[in-house]
Amino acid sequence: MTDNPSGPPAVTIAFIAESAGVSIPTVSKVLNGRSGVSVETRARVEGLINKYGYRRPSGSRGSTVEIVFREMEGTWAVDIIRGVERVARQNRIGVLVSQLGPDSSPATSIDETIGRRPGFVLFVSEISAPEQAKLKAKDIPFVVINPAGELPDDVPFVGTTNWRGGHSATRHLLDLGHRRIAMINGPDYPFCQARMAGYFSAMAEADVAADSSLVVRTFLTREHGYAAALELLSRPDRPTAIFASNDMQAFGVYRAARELGLSIPGELSVVGFDDIVVSDWADPPLTTVHQPLFEMASAATDLAFTLGRGEPVRQVGLEIATVLTIRKSTAPPRS
Amino acid sequence: MTDNPSGPPAVTIAFIAESAGVSIPTVSKVLNGRSGVSVETRARVEGLINKYGYRRPSGSRGSTVEIVFREMEGTWAVDIIRGVERVARQNRIGVLVSQLGPDSSPATSIDETIGRRPGFVLFVSEISAPEQAKLKAKDIPFVVINPAGELPDDVPFVGTTNWRGGHSATRHLLDLGHRRIAMINGPDYPFCQARMAGYFSAMAEADVAADSSLVVRTFLTREHGYAAALELLSRPDRPTAIFASNDMQAFGVYRAARELGLSIPGELSVVGFDDIVVSDWADPPLTTVHQPLFEMASAATDLAFTLGRGEPVRQVGLEIATVLTIRKSTAPPRS
Repeated sequence: MTDNPSGPPAVTIAFIAESAGVSIPTVSKVLNGRSGVSVETRARVEGLINKYGYRRPSGSRGSTVEIVFREMEGTWAVDIIRGVERVARQNRIGVLVSQLGPDSSPATSIDETIGRRPGFVLFVSEISAPEQAKLKAKDIPFVVINPAGELPDDVPFVGTTNWRGGHSATRHLLDLGHRRIAMINGPDYPFCQARMAGYFSAMAEADVAADSSLVVRTFLTREHGYAAALELLSRPDRPTAIFASNDMQAFGVYRAARELGLSIPGELSVVGFDDIVVSDWADPPLTTVHQPLFEMASAATDLAFTLGRGEPVRQVGLEIATVLTIRKSTAPPRS
Repeated sequence: MTDNPSGPPAVTIAFIAESAGVSIPTVSKVLNGRSGVSVETRARVEGLINKYGYRRPSGSRGSTVEIVFREMEGTWAVDIIRGVERVARQNRIGVLVSQLGPDSSPATSIDETIGRRPGFVLFVSEISAPEQAKLKAKDIPFVVINPAGELPDDVPFVGTTNWRGGHSATRHLLDLGHRRIAMINGPDYPFCQARMAGYFSAMAEADVAADSSLVVRTFLTREHGYAAALELLSRPDRPTAIFASNDMQAFGVYRAARELGLSIPGELSVVGFDDIVVSDWADPPLTTVHQPLFEMASAATDLAFTLGRGEPVRQVGLEIATVLTIRKSTAPPRS
């Protein structure tokens, strides 16, 4: 956590202020993302900071990183915590975990988080405007892991390649010979939209006419996947394959197929998304798009620490690649 | 948050300092794990602290509770974190999470934990002697959740009723009419011994002669459960039911049965232990002994906070009841 002793001498706030012809508090405001600086001055100061690579003095950050969950459930939360913990441990940083209580709002809960004086904050999937504003005002670096919604351009995030994942899942089914491929889509989140766009792109590339009646939108739960699949599979011209927006939905498809006496993959191929730990234990083991949650969480932690050191980062957002994991739930359609 | 007024007078830092023949700042350094105290002096002060039972004044506790995992894996870790988080949030206490690194030992890792100045520490399943000694010397309350090993009488813990769970699982199979009931036992931990003892007690109560060849001891993984079940089910006089020591082993039994063409529950009944979140999604949904991890973690956090307030507790160890959750993996044997 110390500067490289053989490197150039440290650039101080005073040096930046003198070079820019502004006061030290003005530079501090820019560094800490606070208001009260004109657009021109901010741009000039930021240009100099980027040029000279100002670093915050070592040790001026808190020694914990807090992971903020909206709701800590499902089998994926542990992967995220473990990914953060690995990088935090290497940096001798403690890991705090919190979730919104039933009576809490993000705007009040973030005050409690700030009260714990974390050096860094990681948000899982969601971040609100008050959270962004309050952390910026306190100069606490934050990163969103697996963002569910649209983010302003200056909010750092680590996501996954959702379009690519949807594309590779659908391509796999097309390569097996399927043509009537249904998709169970999720709610109106960008990551769901991207998965569906990957589906449509792959279908178009294979010159398969899109049948919009085969795309069903519902929630990302097993129960909703079950209901959607029951409806799709009860049609006279039922699909031969279903691509679900997450593994929970896919397990709902399993249940619907079982009730309807359809064998997987003999009479129905199924692909999920996420590769949660239990996907491999299903009967049959689920073919799914692996979402690298552990690596995403590690990368987000790295990014937060880099931002905290005041080092320039090449990009504030990145997506870590999905990988299609082929197991036993997909096969060529019966002709 | 005050000491029990009817208890003995509080031991002060000044008293410890005078008894040890050192200054008050020296005692403070020992209490707070700071350097600058010789090994001999530290040992003398820690000895006196342990002897007289110094308690920090109310309100001086750190505002975090740290959960120490040996290895944070499996689907149960989130239940524990959520259980701690619920009680901690009500008390406006932050939740720290850590696990032993691949290169760490409990003796060195606990120093890092203490360095984060947690108010309370919760250990999941395991606690070492150095961990106990160092936390006692620092007067940091700690509780073990779901202890795997034997504990000294003065180490507070919250476990579950393992004997009762093993008993009710076996009784359920006996009530269905099974007599050749195998048990896949786990390693030589007290909680595995208790589950097995529950099995033997239920068998004896039903006047079923125990066949020790039907009790197999192995590790608590899906792979080991699979191997054990493959062996048991390949015997000419194969069991009609298997009680596994945890759900992971039970999923291994599912796999073995599938490979051998045995239907569950038609030709084989299976009972697990834990009721991890995915037990309900299995095909068929698994009958299992519900281990109330969320409630255990909440109770352990409550207990740690009570100890931290210096309030007398009626018992330092408690077991929260298991509940048999009957799903679809058990049925009467085919006659």
